[in-house]
Amino acid sequence: MTRTIVASATREIVIGFDQPFCVIGERINPTGRKKLAAEMVVGNFETVIKDALEQAAAGATMLDINAGVTAVDPNATEPALMVQTLEIVQGLVDLPLSIDSSVSAAIEAGLKVAKGRPLVNSVTGELEKLEAILPLIKKYNVPVVAISNDETGISEDPDVRFEVARKIVRHAADYGIPAHDIVVDPLVMPIGAMGSAGLQVFRLVRRLREELGVNTTCGLSNISFGLPHRHGINAAFIPMVIASGMTSAIMNPCRPQEMEMVHAANVLNGTDPNCGRWINKYRDHQPTAAASANTGQPAPAGDGNGRRRGGREARRGVMA
Amino acid sequence: MTRTIVASATREIVIGFDQPFCVIGERINPTGRKKLAAEMVVGNFETVIKDALEQAAAGATMLDINAGVTAVDPNATEPALMVQTLEIVQGLVDLPLSIDSSVSAAIEAGLKVAKGRPLVNSVTGELEKLEAILPLIKKYNVPVVAISNDETGISEDPDVRFEVARKIVRHAADYGIPAHDIVVDPLVMPIGAMGSAGLQVFRLVRRLREELGVNTTCGLSNISFGLPHRHGINAAFIPMVIASGMTSAIMNPCRPQEMEMVHAANVLNGTDPNCGRWINKYRDHQPTAAASANTGQPAPAGDGNGRRRGGREARRGVMA
Repeated sequence: MTRTIVASATREIVIGFDQPFCVIGERINPTGRKKLAAEMVVGNFETVIKDALEQAAAGATMLDINAGVTAVDPNATEPALMVQTLEIVQGLVDLPLSIDSSVSAAIEAGLKVAKGRPLVNSVTGELEKLEAILPLIKKYNVPVVAISNDETGISEDPDVRFEVARKIVRHAADYGIPAHDIVVDPLVMPIGAMGSAGLQVFRLVRRLREELGVNTTCGLSNISFGLPHRHGINAAFIPMVIASGMTSAIMNPCRPQEMEMVHAANVLNGTDPNCGRWINKYRDHQPTAAASANTGQPAPAGDGNGRRRGGREARRGVMA
Repeated sequence: MTRTIVASATREIVIGFDQPFCVIGERINPTGRKKLAAEMVVGNFETVIKDALEQAAAGATMLDINAGVTAVDPNATEPALMVQTLEIVQGLVDLPLSIDSSVSAAIEAGLKVAKGRPLVNSVTGELEKLEAILPLIKKYNVPVVAISNDETGISEDPDVRFEVARKIVRHAADYGIPAHDIVVDPLVMPIGAMGSAGLQVFRLVRRLREELGVNTTCGLSNISFGLPHRHGINAAFIPMVIASGMTSAIMNPCRPQEMEMVHAANVLNGTDPNCGRWINKYRDHQPTAAASANTGQPAPAGDGNGRRRGGREARRGVMA
């Protein structure tokens, strides 16, 4: 059974097919967040601190840490800022961290100070990248996210992306890195631009699991890019990738609709024993006005979920 | 490609792997609804009419019609009441109907008056049932729901349930009924009572599709029986069964959370071309207060979905 172990100073988490879905909080990432970038570049970590605490409170399994505040000469700024950000966050919350950078020096700087067993995000199939990152993965004995693109870019052909993933797993093996320490990101295309994007990912995740035996992840919200009501698309995508065998995602844990689907999919996937976490979280749940609109019947008193027991349930009775 | 065709007087619907998920509205069913049963038994169809119109407005693909008002001597009451209910509903809405009864005489009475090509709900693997129902399916050339239990009851072993489904398909073939006119219900157990119920269904649906080439359905809300916040579990179950290959479900279309997941799963499964139905339905969507709680950031003006473009989206740019 594939088990990818990550850890903070005191807490160990297993990413695996028989484990609850691993939610990697995406928010501490200044790429595309001008205000956050402007803060971090002058050493203001107020938003970082707020995002760390909020994501932990919202139920993130681990936190992604990106310190890419500028596209201009990131080598000069990013290593020190990565170290500073990691130290602040690991002083605040006891969650495993993901060291997210396209700058190898920032990754190594982060690995030197990170407590426990962080995840490195990421390597790709580019030879230069493989040769820069894999020695660090081996040296620090940590798992790594492997993004399935290479020198030729991101292929629209899922079979090509699968082969890139296979190539990375083989290269890693040459360094003595086991497949269970590779978490493949098969790359999620926006469904609004490519109608087969969902089916591609479902099939790829299944193949990655069955043929390469690896855990998988993705930048979840990419799927809904450009569409209205993105949260609805994201919320349905989560149970679909989980049913297909995906074991983690880089996503926003502060979105209740998406997190509800993570918790429910864990129940349905058999990774919430006796539905304990679900019952604990939702035992006093009251439907919102919006959720119970148009039902044509009020929720029965003391039930709180508005469902009758009837139809097939009543007719079929208990199982043999 | 498996195509199960159902039709009303003027509207034909295809149930199939490459088709939008078929939502069979469950509400016109007096089993377990005492008030509805009491109304129908005295010839009051107010609730039936209301439920038919509401389910059609909510986006049901077809409507299930059950007239089982009493467990005492149903043979005496059900055939006439089924005819009456069918005629009222098909006079109101132009959706294909499902004739739902455990009384063979009620099914045949319904088949005589139903317009188009109704679905019959249901046959089981019980020999007596097979011999009563399959000749009607052949005679009227209609599709049938096949529930995977037999004389021994409902097995907890999914492999036994698969074999019952195979037996029904073989029996049907003996009558000249093709597999594409069998819609198998693999039987959904409550996840609260059996932690493997979800995994069982996902695997069964995949096998039924790949090995028997049949469409599938289920009484969807059974999965959440006994748990708090059932709609959350139901909502996640829908994308998971769709990702596993299920093509229809008997469910309540008047629940917005569940229907939103049907629409989103259709987008993600590639059965909403160019996301046209999604965009049409949600282009003016505004997040509710509940949905945007705890995000730590307001939705940007004019965006309406509260998501930044950043992280992997911004970093990776367009695909090659």
